Amino acid sequence: MKAEIITIGDEILIGQIIDTNSAWIANELNLIGIDVVRKTSVSDNKDEIIKAIDYAKSTSDIILLTGGLGPTNDDYTKETLAEYYKVELIENAEVLKHISQLITKNVGVLNQRNIDQAKVPANCIVIHNSVGTAPGMWFNDRNKIIISMPGVPFEVKEMMTTTILPKLKNLNTDSVIIHKIILTQGIPESRLAEVLESWENNLPREIKLAYLPSPGLIKLRLSARGNNKAYLQDLIDEQVTKIQQVIPDTICGYDSELLEEIVGNLLLKTGKTLSIAESCTGGYISQLITSIPGSSAYFKGSIVAYSNEIKENILNVSKSNIDIYGAVSKQVVEEMVTGIRRIYNTDYSIATSGISGPAGGSIEKPVGTTWIAIADKNGVISMKYTFGDHRGRNIARASLTALNMLQKRINGIKIDF
Amino acid sequence: MKAEIITIGDEILIGQIIDTNSAWIANELNLIGIDVVRKTSVSDNKDEIIKAIDYAKSTSDIILLTGGLGPTNDDYTKETLAEYYKVELIENAEVLKHISQLITKNVGVLNQRNIDQAKVPANCIVIHNSVGTAPGMWFNDRNKIIISMPGVPFEVKEMMTTTILPKLKNLNTDSVIIHKIILTQGIPESRLAEVLESWENNLPREIKLAYLPSPGLIKLRLSARGNNKAYLQDLIDEQVTKIQQVIPDTICGYDSELLEEIVGNLLLKTGKTLSIAESCTGGYISQLITSIPGSSAYFKGSIVAYSNEIKENILNVSKSNIDIYGAVSKQVVEEMVTGIRRIYNTDYSIATSGISGPAGGSIEKPVGTTWIAIADKNGVISMKYTFGDHRGRNIARASLTALNMLQKRINGIKIDF
Repeated sequence: MKAEIITIGDEILIGQIIDTNSAWIANELNLIGIDVVRKTSVSDNKDEIIKAIDYAKSTSDIILLTGGLGPTNDDYTKETLAEYYKVELIENAEVLKHISQLITKNVGVLNQRNIDQAKVPANCIVIHNSVGTAPGMWFNDRNKIIISMPGVPFEVKEMMTTTILPKLKNLNTDSVIIHKIILTQGIPESRLAEVLESWENNLPREIKLAYLPSPGLIKLRLSARGNNKAYLQDLIDEQVTKIQQVIPDTICGYDSELLEEIVGNLLLKTGKTLSIAESCTGGYISQLITSIPGSSAYFKGSIVAYSNEIKENILNVSKSNIDIYGAVSKQVVEEMVTGIRRIYNTDYSIATSGISGPAGGSIEKPVGTTWIAIADKNGVISMKYTFGDHRGRNIARASLTALNMLQKRINGIKIDF
Repeated sequence: MKAEIITIGDEILIGQIIDTNSAWIANELNLIGIDVVRKTSVSDNKDEIIKAIDYAKSTSDIILLTGGLGPTNDDYTKETLAEYYKVELIENAEVLKHISQLITKNVGVLNQRNIDQAKVPANCIVIHNSVGTAPGMWFNDRNKIIISMPGVPFEVKEMMTTTILPKLKNLNTDSVIIHKIILTQGIPESRLAEVLESWENNLPREIKLAYLPSPGLIKLRLSARGNNKAYLQDLIDEQVTKIQQVIPDTICGYDSELLEEIVGNLLLKTGKTLSIAESCTGGYISQLITSIPGSSAYFKGSIVAYSNEIKENILNVSKSNIDIYGAVSKQVVEEMVTGIRRIYNTDYSIATSGISGPAGGSIEKPVGTTWIAIADKNGVISMKYTFGDHRGRNIARASLTALNMLQKRINGIKIDF
């Protein structure tokens, strides 16, 4: 079955809020084998809403509306739907009782706007909204289904999970879709596509491949579609095994894992600790590591040594090395990584020193030049990278590259890029 | 002028990624007086893309496409546009030169996929993409404009800012829209709305107010629309003067300023230096400070003291204070802030110690409890905050609150929340 999501509300069109609802809804529908073929955002305007519904009905079986159900004067969805179906708005006793309970609990006095929220188009099936005052509405429109929900994300999640998804799942028993995500680090998209060309060309026709790039990391998504779940799972597993043989050292994780999570789990599992000496990344690696709950179990902390004075006085980098080779050099980054590991007394350490830009570049060391080092009890390994011109992106790429180097070091994979 | 944004890509329709591009684009178009009347997301499919363009042309003057320009086989936008206009894809020498420079710098070898990225429909005007390999394309289609961009957010921002927005602004001279953004910190949205109620109710009808909340910071956007720029500017200035009298200590900046930029400029102007001791914020404040180009002029660095061992051994926090009061306490955060200022020898210092969650809370100190301290030559000030339950938001709120405390300290404003 095919679905369209229509979000209603000016706040999305003026860029005031980022629409997170429809990504969540789309993902949930996918998991029960329903394809979202289109998403549309329109303003709180009757004509626009009706045009969008009519268009959606021409391509989709299920149309999910979010937004425009609030008690204020700028919300029109319910009135529009009543007009669309040429029916009256009638007060629903169950809904009124629920609203009255919610309001008296939270605010005290029921006003006319609250009472009006209990009115629904005469032809709809009410979807209970246990966490809010605006009811959801389900319309059986010949062979189409139209569902209207409020725009508040946690109300959407509640109504979808308890009522709408189970109902839709019962209606959609004919198709299955399975996804598998493979995380890769260290090879740019065009090069990766080249390396994977023959594998990609030989994918079974049930499987679709997508590249999802982000700074420092590329995700590959395999999607298998059909009607036999076990068969599709086998197909996916087979292709995962194959790609592991093509790019064994480039794969750094699977599914929704983050690189900082993968590294964290490795440290946790092996009972090892980590410290970081950051120059060009300025605290970015530390905040990635500490964004993971429970990271205090393996992360002792770091020294952000943004000035040479701190590199010398706190990390014990020799002044002569900075004078001779510069702060962005193999010598200095290796002294940094050794220094932090000794001072913080950890099993592993990371150090970065580079030119993030926009200023500070030279012909010999252009903006983007970055040294990254990893240390453990067996010694130090350091690599030089040349990233791009963009400060924010250089910092993100250096940080993810450093985490991937550490991941390889822990896993005993050779670090050669 | 009216615009529609069409995002192209399966990853949005399956809910793999949240579309942040179109909110950003919509906001930027609004700033130059262009209304986004509709947003549509379609899959990487020729028919769907063409149907969406045709529909958009029936209501909008400008159609902005994002996505589907990658070098891999799942991207079709460029081919679709060539087919739509019945023109050939031809190699653009300038684009090829740019791609070749980018690739040889980062990877080394130019492959066929890279070369193919330099091909564009014969009838388009190329939009330079200084930060990526996929060129943007501008089509003059009778009285409509169709613009195609890659889907990568920082590439969209770069191309929009340097080329597309200035060009569109020149074309849209009949209506004027002026925005003024006021940054506030320290008061939650519902409380702020209450404090500002009478001011808001007395806004002239030309001015619209929007609340743009983000973790730790609320932006108020005043938008004045009309055809007399000088008159609108006067109206806005008058309201800014008024709101400054209502919430003088809550306003921390204006327009597109970031709090880390405001603090950086203050330090630069006064020739002062900064160091940070981070516990619960785990490097987040440091990465905010170092995200600003030129921050090495005032930022010496920090110590992320995630474990108590580091607090004691490196920051010289007394073990007895940690034992008696706990790491999340006035005593410890004040020792941290004094320690880092002395060790790093800076004019100002910041320290944080809190419980970000989800674990680590207690009845006495629930998740979200955070101590923040500022030190300078006149002494130390520390404040206790109770943020929420969400780890990521707690870290962001603590970081922005710390930067705002520093800003107030430098400006001689009393820190009382």
